Amino acid sequence: MEKMRALWLEDCRLRLRDSLPIPEAARGEALIQVLRAGICSTDLELTRGYYPYKGVLGHEFVGVVTTGPPDLEGQRVVGEINAVCGDCPACQHGRPTHCENRTVLGIVNRKGAFAEYLTLPAANLHIVPDNVTNDEAVFTEPLAAALEIQEQIEVTENDKVLVVGDGKLGQLIAQTLAPIAGELLVVGRHERKLERLAKLAIPTQRTLPRAGASSESGAELVVGGDSITSSVFESGGGFDIAVECTGNPSGFEMARRALRPRGTLVMKSTYAGALTLDASSVVVDEITLIGSRCGPFAPALRMLEGHEVGVDGMIDARFPLTDALAAFEQAQRPGTLKVVLDIG
Amino acid sequence: MEKMRALWLEDCRLRLRDSLPIPEAARGEALIQVLRAGICSTDLELTRGYYPYKGVLGHEFVGVVTTGPPDLEGQRVVGEINAVCGDCPACQHGRPTHCENRTVLGIVNRKGAFAEYLTLPAANLHIVPDNVTNDEAVFTEPLAAALEIQEQIEVTENDKVLVVGDGKLGQLIAQTLAPIAGELLVVGRHERKLERLAKLAIPTQRTLPRAGASSESGAELVVGGDSITSSVFESGGGFDIAVECTGNPSGFEMARRALRPRGTLVMKSTYAGALTLDASSVVVDEITLIGSRCGPFAPALRMLEGHEVGVDGMIDARFPLTDALAAFEQAQRPGTLKVVLDIG
Repeated sequence: MEKMRALWLEDCRLRLRDSLPIPEAARGEALIQVLRAGICSTDLELTRGYYPYKGVLGHEFVGVVTTGPPDLEGQRVVGEINAVCGDCPACQHGRPTHCENRTVLGIVNRKGAFAEYLTLPAANLHIVPDNVTNDEAVFTEPLAAALEIQEQIEVTENDKVLVVGDGKLGQLIAQTLAPIAGELLVVGRHERKLERLAKLAIPTQRTLPRAGASSESGAELVVGGDSITSSVFESGGGFDIAVECTGNPSGFEMARRALRPRGTLVMKSTYAGALTLDASSVVVDEITLIGSRCGPFAPALRMLEGHEVGVDGMIDARFPLTDALAAFEQAQRPGTLKVVLDIG
Repeated sequence: MEKMRALWLEDCRLRLRDSLPIPEAARGEALIQVLRAGICSTDLELTRGYYPYKGVLGHEFVGVVTTGPPDLEGQRVVGEINAVCGDCPACQHGRPTHCENRTVLGIVNRKGAFAEYLTLPAANLHIVPDNVTNDEAVFTEPLAAALEIQEQIEVTENDKVLVVGDGKLGQLIAQTLAPIAGELLVVGRHERKLERLAKLAIPTQRTLPRAGASSESGAELVVGGDSITSSVFESGGGFDIAVECTGNPSGFEMARRALRPRGTLVMKSTYAGALTLDASSVVVDEITLIGSRCGPFAPALRMLEGHEVGVDGMIDARFPLTDALAAFEQAQRPGTLKVVLDIG
């Protein structure tokens, strides 16, 4: 049996393994040679025990089909990460990403993309258009997650939208919402990341790191007490929609406070611990909170193909798979945008 | 100046006062002689410091207009509790109950209904149809709050709905949702209250009081660990909609756990303290949480007029205003439904 190299997570510890068996494609599945893979905040959370996953990590990738249906063999593909049963109530009711029996690439019971090979159902794969580079294609999964917002709520030219967080996901969300929102503001604390958005003509506002706060997450935001931040809340009656993509309680609090009554808070990030909610204010102000996860790949690929969303300047570092541990160290440094693994 | 009797709240203490000045109707307002008023859970929360209100308590009432526009004078009326400015962004955008400058009857800067007289803007008043008794009319405000759910989300014959809580609000919510939901289940812990719903052909399920839990709120629910409760979560793939009307973290947790992915949790009760939320599960399951407060009076009155909602058996005790302190003691006893004050 042929062997492959892969990055293995077990008991919150990462380990490079060089003789894992190459997975076999089950019926309906394809075997994919991974070309490039991206490290996501969820990967970092998994190394901190967010979910008790054991196996090959990684779910953002672009690769080439080596074994699969004839129309896919040899094609460059990206893949939706939820492998579903098709039979459970969620699948039957059009909510396949919530399949009760799902495996999730590199997250739940399915070996992931930080490896030389992976398998996924052929139905999950999307051929990457020729004019989309590997560096662009590796952003398909997070871009689809950004587009999930528009699947869940209507965003129109009448809406004033706040994006809290200037990180990897915030960058993509801002670019997907800028063309359709009436007003858009991104708040974050990283000058370099905000400058990237400013170059795309997206308004930004810098918040300051909280005095004495841990900077581990790289996304701590000041909720009040400084004039820069408070002006977010004085800009004319509040925001209709706030998208939280820091995964920090302080980012959540900022998003909450920025909303007008009956506004909508989209929760785009998972949180390491429990979140404390002022539930009475949610009731009194009739706020809607909506959790948002995986999104549609097809429109994400179309946006990349049409250069409607750019990823220039979003890759901060690249490492070979043999240096995956160093890649994770880099990815965890505050202020880092995307770190990719060049695999194939 | 004429004087009146009223129940006064100050520093979380209730006091009967017998020589408060009768309020004067400002321009556009009417003076109303209160006939009957209901004690609401929000009144109980206010006595516990939920919001720092000082003044006459009470916001559920039916009365007779003594001074006001000619078409209202002498009429029996109920009144919407938010007195609004009409000029702020919320008012201008069709969200008057969220007026930034609002006063709220017996809750925010406006003397309330546990008094012989109150004032409200004439525009807030609705004439009570002749066939609606005072005992029925006093439920207009909470019935409107129940109907607010349908203003915010669509409930259809395809929806399986769980109402958590068999109290005053849960009783009304269940009756408003029963005709439109595909399936409806009310969980609560009071045999007598559940029996009232069962007589209306509304399915119910009893939960047990949590061992050793405080029964102060009268609405503590068991979240797991007993077979009666857990069957709520085994009844076929989860609920599409859950309405939380206990105001207890355990009730919230039960509502949350009963939902299918992408389900909607309607938060109908305010909470004494902060609520701890498993935010990651809300994101992963793409749950919608929606706060819900005051609703429309006109359809509530129509439902009472058409006997679409009944309030038989919902008044547990009645007291004259002079015994208002005893009425509050009664209202705080676990298992009590509505306590009314007979005033005029």
